[in-house]
Amino acid sequence: MYAILGLMDINEQALELHKKLKGKIHISLRGDVTPETLNLFYSPGVGEASKYAQNDKDRLAEVAWTNNLVAVVSDGSSVLGLGDIGPEGAMPVMEGKAMLFKHFADIDAVPIVLDVHTADEIVAAVKAIAPSFGGINLEDIAAPKSFEIEDRLKAELDIPVMHDDQHGTAIVVLAGLINSAKVRGKDLADSKVVIVGAGAAGVAVARLIYEYASPEIVVVDSKGILQPSRNDLTKEKVLLMSYSSNYPPGDLQTAMKDADIVIGLSRGGLLTPEIIKVMAPDPVVFALANPDPEILPDDAKKAGALIVATGRSDFPNQVNNSLGFPGIFRGALDNGVKRITDEHKLAAANALADLVQEPTADKIIPNPFDPGVVETVANAIR
Amino acid sequence: MYAILGLMDINEQALELHKKLKGKIHISLRGDVTPETLNLFYSPGVGEASKYAQNDKDRLAEVAWTNNLVAVVSDGSSVLGLGDIGPEGAMPVMEGKAMLFKHFADIDAVPIVLDVHTADEIVAAVKAIAPSFGGINLEDIAAPKSFEIEDRLKAELDIPVMHDDQHGTAIVVLAGLINSAKVRGKDLADSKVVIVGAGAAGVAVARLIYEYASPEIVVVDSKGILQPSRNDLTKEKVLLMSYSSNYPPGDLQTAMKDADIVIGLSRGGLLTPEIIKVMAPDPVVFALANPDPEILPDDAKKAGALIVATGRSDFPNQVNNSLGFPGIFRGALDNGVKRITDEHKLAAANALADLVQEPTADKIIPNPFDPGVVETVANAIR
Repeated sequence: MYAILGLMDINEQALELHKKLKGKIHISLRGDVTPETLNLFYSPGVGEASKYAQNDKDRLAEVAWTNNLVAVVSDGSSVLGLGDIGPEGAMPVMEGKAMLFKHFADIDAVPIVLDVHTADEIVAAVKAIAPSFGGINLEDIAAPKSFEIEDRLKAELDIPVMHDDQHGTAIVVLAGLINSAKVRGKDLADSKVVIVGAGAAGVAVARLIYEYASPEIVVVDSKGILQPSRNDLTKEKVLLMSYSSNYPPGDLQTAMKDADIVIGLSRGGLLTPEIIKVMAPDPVVFALANPDPEILPDDAKKAGALIVATGRSDFPNQVNNSLGFPGIFRGALDNGVKRITDEHKLAAANALADLVQEPTADKIIPNPFDPGVVETVANAIR
Repeated sequence: MYAILGLMDINEQALELHKKLKGKIHISLRGDVTPETLNLFYSPGVGEASKYAQNDKDRLAEVAWTNNLVAVVSDGSSVLGLGDIGPEGAMPVMEGKAMLFKHFADIDAVPIVLDVHTADEIVAAVKAIAPSFGGINLEDIAAPKSFEIEDRLKAELDIPVMHDDQHGTAIVVLAGLINSAKVRGKDLADSKVVIVGAGAAGVAVARLIYEYASPEIVVVDSKGILQPSRNDLTKEKVLLMSYSSNYPPGDLQTAMKDADIVIGLSRGGLLTPEIIKVMAPDPVVFALANPDPEILPDDAKKAGALIVATGRSDFPNQVNNSLGFPGIFRGALDNGVKRITDEHKLAAANALADLVQEPTADKIIPNPFDPGVVETVANAIR
């Protein structure tokens, strides 16, 4: 099908493929429905399974598909590079995510797009439907409400809840940084790291890197370096400063001076060659904005970068969330993990990094299609 | 598998089968995930499908699985004969219903069990997730809140919403009554009909029969005949009286005097042979309580019944909701029907009745496994 579509550009191809298939997932049956089995799968026999599962989620998982089932939940408020496109706009992305859950980890996932948008409403809706699922993957929900939503759901539900834009991204970024440090020969703990972008992903990345190695971290948002004299900071940005050991007043250029590593989680084109040149020698540049990175790999290399990673599959070192979430939920579901902790995330990042046996500047992280990725990450979630 | 399980009783077989399969449905993919297609099914190409579908549910249905997708929603407050068994208890039944949707009508259905129980909360939860689906099948929600929930959702959502315990049952019962009248040779319009049970199904059955032929209807609940001097009636039971042309004070025995038809929607054993004997000659007995009918077919026939129907598959004339909901939603989804009206229900009942070319006392309704059932019902929903 892909070949037939030929020379059209990728967006046209994608829309045409979506119209042709009219959806990317569907429901299949685990048994044949016949007059005989109908009495077992449905009334009257099913009543026995219902009595067995009543008020007991663990027993329910023995007799229903919930043991292998994740909801991919979004209100469509921050979808890819498209922003707030609402539930209908979000659905094709969430259905795609469900497809990846199935393909990579054999997890059944159902896309749930919400027509409510405040933190209270989203928490109420997810709690209401939670008994239907074995895990909740929050997706593309705008910061800062995403922080409150995830925190409350983790506290109030007894199934794993993860906002993938935050923690999936953080795990894969950390895996890449672990191997970048090996290639470059300087410990992460001794490095200066600049994080550009203080949204959902920026907060999670800063936190996980800090948990891992406590390097010098400087966070920059659209107004400049986060630092205590600013009075425009959200609660989460204030929290971010607790991971920052260095926050002089100043702009991006000030922050980047002598930095070993920059992690762009902002917008295309923001990192110019001139800005890369003020970094320490042989710097590491993660330009993760999608689809247009903060700087193109060739430009970053010409400006002195030793290692460049992006979010794109057509360049080396793709920081791809598909490396994380399938194995994380596979491990959580298989091992009865009710809450995904920082220890799980650190273990997953280490496991992902170790999958690359001899890291080089062009191969610091695995490809999601590499064998063993899901199993390795799943084994880290116990 | 069924044969291997051998001689165990049906409940044990059912529980064992559920434990063996660990669920009755799963997710399958409509395309292969490869490094090439990943760019189309997911980022970046999927963004084009998202932009196409933004704020437009009809366009979304062109590119996402919502065009063929129904949520089977329950709070578990009135499940089969088990009563209020909560969301976990309800899940095996709702997953079974999803299985039937797929088998009979090739509709993808997702079971959603709710951990909220007031009408306001259930309406809020269903409205919140509604953009994820092409239709809502409400199931096993207790009366009287089920009436309010269905009415509000029908008014506030632009997709078909149906409480199957009410309307699915009413359609199949009416189909059976249409053919019973042919066999017995007395028009439904000229008959006296007693409805025993004034819950969700009783209300819907009374209403649809009244719409169809305005026969003499008497409704009986656990306190006796519904009539204006009673001060214990819910809003719905008061409404029910508007379909009743005759409501003397009295008990079940009073109501049954000279009745042509009785429709039991109550509990096993309630209709004794003595009570059947006070009916008009050659009466029609629908004893639909599950799994134990109000009277067993042999006992009803010995007491004079010409035609007996039950909810069970091991007797003739099974009044089975699987005759209704698959075709109703198939028709609604295929024909862009946003609201299922009384006209649709009457057309579906007539179509089901017509499928039995030569009705007899032992064959007044089709079997759900008969060919053409879904197509015939779907054609009635336009």
